[in-house]
Amino acid sequence: MSTRLSPTDHPIHEILQARWSPRAFTSDPVSPAQIRSLLEAARWSASGANGQPWSFIVAPREDTQTFELLLGTLVEANQVWAKNAPLLILAAAQVLREPGKPNPWALYDLGQAAAHLSIQATSLGIYVHQMAGFSPDQARAAFAIPEDFQPVTVIAVGSLGSPDDLPAPLREREIADRTRKPLASFVFGSTWGTPSPTLNG
Amino acid sequence: MSTRLSPTDHPIHEILQARWSPRAFTSDPVSPAQIRSLLEAARWSASGANGQPWSFIVAPREDTQTFELLLGTLVEANQVWAKNAPLLILAAAQVLREPGKPNPWALYDLGQAAAHLSIQATSLGIYVHQMAGFSPDQARAAFAIPEDFQPVTVIAVGSLGSPDDLPAPLREREIADRTRKPLASFVFGSTWGTPSPTLNG
Repeated sequence: MSTRLSPTDHPIHEILQARWSPRAFTSDPVSPAQIRSLLEAARWSASGANGQPWSFIVAPREDTQTFELLLGTLVEANQVWAKNAPLLILAAAQVLREPGKPNPWALYDLGQAAAHLSIQATSLGIYVHQMAGFSPDQARAAFAIPEDFQPVTVIAVGSLGSPDDLPAPLREREIADRTRKPLASFVFGSTWGTPSPTLNG
Repeated sequence: MSTRLSPTDHPIHEILQARWSPRAFTSDPVSPAQIRSLLEAARWSASGANGQPWSFIVAPREDTQTFELLLGTLVEANQVWAKNAPLLILAAAQVLREPGKPNPWALYDLGQAAAHLSIQATSLGIYVHQMAGFSPDQARAAFAIPEDFQPVTVIAVGSLGSPDDLPAPLREREIADRTRKPLASFVFGSTWGTPSPTLNG
């Protein structure tokens, strides 16, 4: 299976370069030891005042009931491929520090924890695909998620499968060139919109 | 200088384990090539529908005017140490996809980009300290940040300095034990609040 390294314009660490978000997963289970390392990586990410405003629901395929409950929250377009992943994880942000007291950085911090989880996965030779396409309300009801937490993403995890196992439109996306905006379009210097002089060199 | 590896309960990749958020930085500059690698790492992080809802303002100390403008947005408690960092970066999220159309995942995605930047820094032997303590309004005014973007954090970057160079209370925090909540307090299985069975093993 191709690793689809990011076609970078500047050198980045090989783990960051190897990370991407597949839809084709094999049925090989993610072991409990691997799951613990994924969450341990998330645990040690940075957060505002070390508040760690995150929680996760872990649904390995073997835990059929939890897996099906979480799978059922996904939009149909995600279920069609995510049903084959051996592990789904719900990521939730603690958006209220206490009743009526929002934490405006909760989603930012949760994103960092999820990035650490993804990068740890890559270092283990497994991959992650984060999904916004799910019903937070359905997830809240299914798992009795309290009001101070907001379900933000569902994360599929597993070993890389074959694009041939995906329906045709997804198969093409799976092997399409990976693209990003150029740095000069979003890295500015003294003036918003003007590329940072540090980009030249 | 101690690397202060995270005291993990489960193995994680050495770069993730080495990342932490110092306040003491040396005056050694972060080179333009290093800056490009930091932003390139951010560039290749994941985002909803590959929307890449992020922009950055890069303020190396050598660019005195930009550096001072960004430094001036920080709360006093951050200025006291961040003024010695050789590089400050403002991270902003595109919270509106178009007028009246919010992107609820913009901060989550920006957090991932910032995490990639931090991990790339660690791989280069430099460190990052992200700050929520600054004035977004002042930053918006100083850099003419448009309405669709929200300034979220200011990130100090540099080589690790000596805790002895910090004022006393910060010196103690710089060398204090690094702590996190236990996994069992935020990694759940079928029921919110009940630790995932995958944590046992």
